[in-house]
Amino acid sequence: MSFTERFRSVQEATRSLLCVGLDVDASKIPAHLKHDPEPVLAFNRAIIDATKDLVCAYKPNLAFYEAMGESGWRILRETVRMIPKSVITIGDAKRGDIGNTAAQYARALFDDLGFDSVTVNPYMGFDSVDPFLKYPEKGVFLLALTSNPGSRDFQRQKVGRTPLYEKVVRAAKKWNTSANIGLVVGATHPRELKRIRSLVPGMPLLIPGVGSQGGDLEQSIRYGGDKEGMLAVINASRSILYASSGADFAAAARTEAMRMRDAMRAVMDELATSKRRVRR
Amino acid sequence: MSFTERFRSVQEATRSLLCVGLDVDASKIPAHLKHDPEPVLAFNRAIIDATKDLVCAYKPNLAFYEAMGESGWRILRETVRMIPKSVITIGDAKRGDIGNTAAQYARALFDDLGFDSVTVNPYMGFDSVDPFLKYPEKGVFLLALTSNPGSRDFQRQKVGRTPLYEKVVRAAKKWNTSANIGLVVGATHPRELKRIRSLVPGMPLLIPGVGSQGGDLEQSIRYGGDKEGMLAVINASRSILYASSGADFAAAARTEAMRMRDAMRAVMDELATSKRRVRR
Repeated sequence: MSFTERFRSVQEATRSLLCVGLDVDASKIPAHLKHDPEPVLAFNRAIIDATKDLVCAYKPNLAFYEAMGESGWRILRETVRMIPKSVITIGDAKRGDIGNTAAQYARALFDDLGFDSVTVNPYMGFDSVDPFLKYPEKGVFLLALTSNPGSRDFQRQKVGRTPLYEKVVRAAKKWNTSANIGLVVGATHPRELKRIRSLVPGMPLLIPGVGSQGGDLEQSIRYGGDKEGMLAVINASRSILYASSGADFAAAARTEAMRMRDAMRAVMDELATSKRRVRR
Repeated sequence: MSFTERFRSVQEATRSLLCVGLDVDASKIPAHLKHDPEPVLAFNRAIIDATKDLVCAYKPNLAFYEAMGESGWRILRETVRMIPKSVITIGDAKRGDIGNTAAQYARALFDDLGFDSVTVNPYMGFDSVDPFLKYPEKGVFLLALTSNPGSRDFQRQKVGRTPLYEKVVRAAKKWNTSANIGLVVGATHPRELKRIRSLVPGMPLLIPGVGSQGGDLEQSIRYGGDKEGMLAVINASRSILYASSGADFAAAARTEAMRMRDAMRAVMDELATSKRRVRR
């Protein structure tokens, strides 16, 4: 089964497009957990237990674990192990380097940490991406148009008549011979999301930027989804992790995750209904 | 003292443009070291001891340490600590992420690992670079035109009349208000190196790709250097680390590093002489 097929089957089984970003800032962990010998691990375990039936994916961002120093790497590996095999893990690493070095990153992320997929920065071109693609059952989400203001500095610059990010999208389509490439497209760019989806109908799109960054959930699914919203994966981090800073943080995270998952299902149902209507 | 001033003063004091890339592949370490409780650390210590009077900088690439798993992070931190304060450390991490996340990477690289400078991928734009620039005494080498074949896929694409990498160079110049930005330009592109140097006369250029990747040492200094070759830093990794696979690896590394350093000095002397000649 290709990564894309597995991705689709997980979304079908969970009927969820929600990805929880496990970007745990040690300074934001509820006070009562600080007595635990492993506060971050205890926090992650509680968040995962409270949300695992509501999501299609978890996405730890490596920066937050690296900032913890040596123990961060172990905490990250143990976090990946806690995640049920029935959902997808995305190592948000945004790596990219020359071939022999990229192969070392792939080893670290896929073999050592055990991620199902990773995010990769395309700036260095094909030979920097290829070592990740050589793991056919693993997924590679290439940064195309990111959610942040800086996306205008280079990604939106026009190369001929085409913005640079679209060059990346077209390259990704060409490189996708093992059906294991996805793209990162920020929810803050709904029009471009629609255009990108039209270029790569069968490709998973990882969509961050809903919530605190201002992206719209419904548009992200309508424009970023394939049929009935599938293959869009909507990331939320802070709004779920820090829904409450008290002892009830896990229950509050569950409530917020369920609210988002249900809002997603409502859009998916509407898309399915309007499609049936069109067919008649 | 700004990072650029410190960089220049280290090169003046050492009369060396050589950077040794500490990209240690555990599988390539000489057999006799494998009995050491810490083979990679023993290898790095021996390489640093054998070359520290010949270099202006050391550049560990994080990928090689991450591939070792949890212990890699500790080995990397201890390696950075072994490096004399009289030379520059460059954490070759090629990171880049949205603002709050980039700040975590900066913390990991500057505060936890203790690097003097890092490499950063510019694809995500200003707000992904700014958290690193906020450490005014630390350096940021932005990827401009990398040494690998994939540099043609996006970096060389024309944005209007200007290749993308030159847009990065011009942005770096604009963002360089604390004199702490440098650029990465592969030795495999001598013509472009000359052009880039003309655009940023006072900026450090980190130049990988001499040796196994085919870049030319003399051209790299002539075209990549400022006055008398200064501010070019020429990286060599495998040719020095694995100059011998036997018990004499450290002595062989020293011989190769000295050969390179002396070849660099010869070019620098020639540039100084021809400049004096022009002045008369």
